[in-house]
Amino acid sequence: MLTYDMEKRGKIPRYDYLYRCIKADILEGRLKSGSRLPSKRALAEHIAVSVVTVENAYAQLGSEGYILSRPRSGYYVCPAEELPAPPVSVPAPSSAFLPRREEEKTEKKWKYDFASNRIDPSRFPFSVWSRLMRETLSIGGEELLRPSPFNGERALREAIADYLLRSRGISVPPERIVVGAGTEYLYGLIVQLLGRERVYAVEDPSYPKIAQVYRANGAAVTFVPMDGQGVRPDRLAATSAAVLHVSPSHQYPTGIVTGFTRRSELLAWAARREGYVIEDDYDSEFRLAGKPVQPMQALDTAGRVIYVNTFSRTLAPSMRISYMALPEGLMREFSEKLGFYACTVPVFEQLTLAKFIAEGYFERHLGRMRNIYRKKRDEAVCLFAGSGYPLEITAEDAGLHFLVRLQTDLPDEEVRRRAAERGVRLAFLSDFTAEAGGASHCIVVNYSGL
Amino acid sequence: MLTYDMEKRGKIPRYDYLYRCIKADILEGRLKSGSRLPSKRALAEHIAVSVVTVENAYAQLGSEGYILSRPRSGYYVCPAEELPAPPVSVPAPSSAFLPRREEEKTEKKWKYDFASNRIDPSRFPFSVWSRLMRETLSIGGEELLRPSPFNGERALREAIADYLLRSRGISVPPERIVVGAGTEYLYGLIVQLLGRERVYAVEDPSYPKIAQVYRANGAAVTFVPMDGQGVRPDRLAATSAAVLHVSPSHQYPTGIVTGFTRRSELLAWAARREGYVIEDDYDSEFRLAGKPVQPMQALDTAGRVIYVNTFSRTLAPSMRISYMALPEGLMREFSEKLGFYACTVPVFEQLTLAKFIAEGYFERHLGRMRNIYRKKRDEAVCLFAGSGYPLEITAEDAGLHFLVRLQTDLPDEEVRRRAAERGVRLAFLSDFTAEAGGASHCIVVNYSGL
Repeated sequence: MLTYDMEKRGKIPRYDYLYRCIKADILEGRLKSGSRLPSKRALAEHIAVSVVTVENAYAQLGSEGYILSRPRSGYYVCPAEELPAPPVSVPAPSSAFLPRREEEKTEKKWKYDFASNRIDPSRFPFSVWSRLMRETLSIGGEELLRPSPFNGERALREAIADYLLRSRGISVPPERIVVGAGTEYLYGLIVQLLGRERVYAVEDPSYPKIAQVYRANGAAVTFVPMDGQGVRPDRLAATSAAVLHVSPSHQYPTGIVTGFTRRSELLAWAARREGYVIEDDYDSEFRLAGKPVQPMQALDTAGRVIYVNTFSRTLAPSMRISYMALPEGLMREFSEKLGFYACTVPVFEQLTLAKFIAEGYFERHLGRMRNIYRKKRDEAVCLFAGSGYPLEITAEDAGLHFLVRLQTDLPDEEVRRRAAERGVRLAFLSDFTAEAGGASHCIVVNYSGL
Repeated sequence: MLTYDMEKRGKIPRYDYLYRCIKADILEGRLKSGSRLPSKRALAEHIAVSVVTVENAYAQLGSEGYILSRPRSGYYVCPAEELPAPPVSVPAPSSAFLPRREEEKTEKKWKYDFASNRIDPSRFPFSVWSRLMRETLSIGGEELLRPSPFNGERALREAIADYLLRSRGISVPPERIVVGAGTEYLYGLIVQLLGRERVYAVEDPSYPKIAQVYRANGAAVTFVPMDGQGVRPDRLAATSAAVLHVSPSHQYPTGIVTGFTRRSELLAWAARREGYVIEDDYDSEFRLAGKPVQPMQALDTAGRVIYVNTFSRTLAPSMRISYMALPEGLMREFSEKLGFYACTVPVFEQLTLAKFIAEGYFERHLGRMRNIYRKKRDEAVCLFAGSGYPLEITAEDAGLHFLVRLQTDLPDEEVRRRAAERGVRLAFLSDFTAEAGGASHCIVVNYSGL
């Protein structure tokens, strides 16, 4: 029977201490994979804690994928290959082009880097992925060497369609999904589809690459200011834009979640303008609390929403697989106008990912990551809240960043400099605004890569 | 000792019969992988043929990858996993979009399809590739999950640079190579780099996708007529084009190889116009006879040539890996202007391909494929030459197609119809011309997918 000295737990709660002890035993191999754990009641008696304490510890281990419960049988340690990988350090991406390399050489080693919104790929379920890759390889040449349909492998599009229905309430047939090598590539295709003579409206502030991609593809970009609900419809209507790029589930960097009424107003704008909404749902999987928000795609009855999402952020940045769901009319146009393009994702990756989703690993991985990110967020919130500076924390329940509003008269650059001296890298809301805004006093805290 | 009855060879040459016998013994496992073959002299004596006959048979087996020679040791059967795969039938790509699927349903089963220029992926060295993939997987998460530099993995760019120097006499540092998901994607990047306000000149006739991609990216396209040497400089100079897309090693569909003088003239045009030449070298690996032609990139001293090539055609269409080598000034501009883009090829595929090239498998595969395609070509030439119709065969030494000029008064459509009745699918030069040309009487024979 598992034996832990609960007196050694210090100040941490009983359930948390028990959870940590069992996790350590699993990770260090003392609890073998597949072995049965004691019943909650038996363990509670043995180490003299309440059943609820064991229940909470088991629930935590279960949600992180270390153990699983079998009905009418009890709790078991997960098979080794499905265990979450122990954290490893991931080096910064190296660029081989010299000017960039030199820049990197002088890059500082930060104690805390809150400016990089890189995800944490060290928790990627690598052994499951490897097994599925080997299974895919074993299919052999015929299946793997033929070219993909222009919009991607049917198996992957089916897995995505099922997942979208289950997790986002989006009902879209696999025929209307287009798979491509990254969202940046898909934005480029969208410009080719909708035309570069249209003006593309982008949220201000927003992730700078979005406007960069549209401009590189020859389209004009206009920035639209936001209020607490997202893009302001009055300011949008005053532009010449016919296409609107938004992230209503969780906007970067403001963290704003756009409510139902505002979503409807933006859809009405698209219908009136005979334009389109590009719904960039990239961060919706990491909503950490509260009810998930219905995507605009699911509200759209006029065929005006292009839904875009990516696996680079939920799985690993080295994997370039994104997809979009097009309204029926646009899909027909895409097929006629751009169907000559070959699909840009290798068949091998597509089939492996299709299995990963269809066999339930993707959603289990997301569940685990939400737990991990929730803890990281809690730690980051504690760090700021406990810093002793006068500040206010907002937008911390969705996506992989939150905001810290400082009560200070110092310009952002001065706060940035002082933090850097202490080994802390900060990004500010003012870094992302198109209109020169001056000091925002608002830190964008990216904690996912911590 | 190997014992074959040379009397049974019928009308085929001795060396060819011997080659077939040994190959069959290897493929059916009677000759074990790794086993030593008799010396040329010993085998020649044993089966009463000349040493030259054995030599030729061994050379053929060697060039196709069935046996290898070790200096001062003799000939050995290749390890099983490196043996060329036996041919399998590759189904047509299935498109999941309904309109296309229905089109396919009505697609005819051809006895001979000379119109599809699909390559034959059934000979892909799948077991070697699988082993390298497993090796790459075993590197583990850290290396495989970090994002790639914007221009691709350094290991792959180094392998490509070495290969280009060895095989094409192109000297380019890995820093000036950009890896991307297919040539179509790279053409799009080139338009973003050079600007869509420039006019892009394309050979007439040419592969229709080239002009389609430039147009979809918002650039104007002008077609330039060709003579026996390629694009006509006088006609090119008369256009407003500042960028020229050419395939000087072997043009599709004309099969024209552009000689040194014409190449120099086109380079001089680019320097005068301060424009660029996009050298599409896609078919150069399959030059079946004669000296390889030096690429324009290697002649270019003014930094005016963008060299583009792909692995989709030499390996398998399911693999979307292409690359371009940029002149120094353009590479700097690319890095500044478009370096924000993430690389579109998964790290996993990049590292596997890097090994495949660096360990020599790529060039051995090309050698084998040249032999296979040479035979296919010979068969296709025999079919046409032996048809009894008055015709002339040209451009049969490079790339994966040749031309058949018919002596007929019938319009191309009528010839196409009559061939189709006999189960033969034909493509004509007139299918590829931009200027309405009427009857060309010239068949473009694609034999690679036969």
